[in-house]
Amino acid sequence: MDLSHLALWLASSDVTLPLTIFVVFGTAKLLEELFERFGLPGIVGNILAGILIGPSLFGWIQPGEFLTALAELGVMFLLFQVGLHVKASELMSVGLTATVTATLGVIVPFIAGWGILRLWGEPHIEAIFTGAAMVATSVGITARVLGEKGLLNLQASKIILAAAVIDDVIGLLVLALVSGLAKGGVNYAELATTAILAIGFTVLVAKWGTRAMGRVVKRAENLNLGESQFALAMILLFGLSVVSVYMGVAAIIGAFLAGMALSENVTTRVHDLVFGVSELFVPFFLAGIGLHMDLTAIGNLHVLTLAIVILIAAVISKIVGCGLGAVKLGRTDALRVGVGMVPRGEVGMVVAQIGLSLGVVKKEIYGVVVFMSVMTTIIAPALLTWAYRGAAVEDTGEE
Amino acid sequence: MDLSHLALWLASSDVTLPLTIFVVFGTAKLLEELFERFGLPGIVGNILAGILIGPSLFGWIQPGEFLTALAELGVMFLLFQVGLHVKASELMSVGLTATVTATLGVIVPFIAGWGILRLWGEPHIEAIFTGAAMVATSVGITARVLGEKGLLNLQASKIILAAAVIDDVIGLLVLALVSGLAKGGVNYAELATTAILAIGFTVLVAKWGTRAMGRVVKRAENLNLGESQFALAMILLFGLSVVSVYMGVAAIIGAFLAGMALSENVTTRVHDLVFGVSELFVPFFLAGIGLHMDLTAIGNLHVLTLAIVILIAAVISKIVGCGLGAVKLGRTDALRVGVGMVPRGEVGMVVAQIGLSLGVVKKEIYGVVVFMSVMTTIIAPALLTWAYRGAAVEDTGEE
Repeated sequence: MDLSHLALWLASSDVTLPLTIFVVFGTAKLLEELFERFGLPGIVGNILAGILIGPSLFGWIQPGEFLTALAELGVMFLLFQVGLHVKASELMSVGLTATVTATLGVIVPFIAGWGILRLWGEPHIEAIFTGAAMVATSVGITARVLGEKGLLNLQASKIILAAAVIDDVIGLLVLALVSGLAKGGVNYAELATTAILAIGFTVLVAKWGTRAMGRVVKRAENLNLGESQFALAMILLFGLSVVSVYMGVAAIIGAFLAGMALSENVTTRVHDLVFGVSELFVPFFLAGIGLHMDLTAIGNLHVLTLAIVILIAAVISKIVGCGLGAVKLGRTDALRVGVGMVPRGEVGMVVAQIGLSLGVVKKEIYGVVVFMSVMTTIIAPALLTWAYRGAAVEDTGEE
Repeated sequence: MDLSHLALWLASSDVTLPLTIFVVFGTAKLLEELFERFGLPGIVGNILAGILIGPSLFGWIQPGEFLTALAELGVMFLLFQVGLHVKASELMSVGLTATVTATLGVIVPFIAGWGILRLWGEPHIEAIFTGAAMVATSVGITARVLGEKGLLNLQASKIILAAAVIDDVIGLLVLALVSGLAKGGVNYAELATTAILAIGFTVLVAKWGTRAMGRVVKRAENLNLGESQFALAMILLFGLSVVSVYMGVAAIIGAFLAGMALSENVTTRVHDLVFGVSELFVPFFLAGIGLHMDLTAIGNLHVLTLAIVILIAAVISKIVGCGLGAVKLGRTDALRVGVGMVPRGEVGMVVAQIGLSLGVVKKEIYGVVVFMSVMTTIIAPALLTWAYRGAAVEDTGEE
């Protein structure tokens, strides 16, 4: 009889779950500690862990459904936790600057990406998709770096957060537009509906979420129910994420808005419990970015050159575009804002993936965009540390 | 163009993840609060939530791979957290009583289950499988109830925990034996190897784990690495779970041993972070038990009668068997131990599932065993509250 198989069966159905978590989390944390030992950003260690154990190098781990779910949980908790540290009123107060920043941070990178691919002799539609992917911002990376350093309350950091939320909405519309073009027709009425829904929802929650949650939490407190504040927080987190998706905004934006609505209403106990979940799952989000990079796609010199050109353009165009948007804050803050918007992370990859699945982006260009998305993410923490040099944590009162 | 679909696509790939979590967690917590409002055990509310939204009633949620993974995470963190509150040395000190308790708690229920099915006129092999399923103990349920009431440090509670670990090892061997019989041949040499490996591993970790972890944690402290104690704890948790499975013990036993090895070595900060993860995922484990119950399988009166007879026998046989094993502690503690071993939970269901997949257990008997597993789990919290009445939390110094 096949006893060992049976034993495995009984022993909680499967070894896959603990084994996958052990390998991914263990490698991510190991590289994080190593990197920090050498004064490098730990977050990059997490991403490199994904590249190391993923298909690019060792091939121990393939990105599958389970890991994708853990990564999604990770980025949702990351943004929820960031939201918990941000007051909605303060974010609203930088709304105008953030809108200009996000808008310029969409226009400049799009033109840069589109222009370079046209000059490179690529078809119009591939140029448009590359431009759209360069519009993306993965705010999770910046938020993680700033959160770890205790710099989230600086003026520049708030503009980054607000601009990233707006960027997500604009990015969605750009993608819808671009996908429409790829399919040969744009439904402008539907596009407008999506825009209104997404913007309306975001503004509504940002503006009145805190007050509404204040009432809910107070009422729950009167009931005197143990850890119910945490349970309430979780229900709001996932509930608002679901509504976000239906409203056409990313689930992580819902998670961020949920955190923000609770930021003035929950105890530090809730902060601690959320921190536990996020400490466990954020490495899966970061390693997940690395797991999706496949270096073989940009294997030949011609494609590699394009990848590097696009990478440089991606960095410069966001710094220039977003920096211009925040220029009235002075050079230092403008640079911080620009650098903070550089990482494209998982958002850029999703755009490329849609292009690939629509059959309008070829494998090489997909590889170029993924390379750009991962590399901007890897570069960003060091750039951020440099741009925020001299900004003491005590500065948090500066706004 | 299909804009809404595209929007969903971009918006973090999928609404399934937040939606599933929202529905399961939300319903579980809602029923938990409702139950507690009426003085009933909240844990039962969690299980009933699973029955409510699962295939038995509303059919909103089907138990799938993702939910199973969350449930597995939940029970692993539950047992890890329980381990964190238990000193290995104290568990070892009740080792002998626990062994007698576990052994009698295997023998009496097995004979009861086997005997009833034979009297009912069922085939020999189905009687044996039912007996084997009645051997199981789902320590998670008891540990959750006792942990919430702060009663884990009582003498009886420690015996329950130790006996449950031993029960898992014996249960595994019984299942291997029974499956061998079903397939027409038992390999006794392999069975002995499994037994030695499983027992050796468990004793080894229980005996020397704490000292070994003390050294590791101290060394890590000297490196002065932020939240690295939590990271270390996670690596040990999942690492030991993996090794457990390879040694032929359930992953949750590894999780429990990992917690115990760390119980004297980590800060309350780690306790808090672990608590956050467990608060989020334990409801998935509990609701998962309810999700797997399908009442239609025991739809006719004949089968329902058998199910109720088996349920009564399952409760009495564990109380009598385990109570006898702990009788030298006096009637009160013997009763507590007996009641604490009553819930069969997910372990009983796995045994029935193996019988079903081997083709030796018919659907009705499978339904009977699942009913018994779920119902013992639902009854247990109330029985425990009754058996532990008068045991003040301050009693924790009694050992």
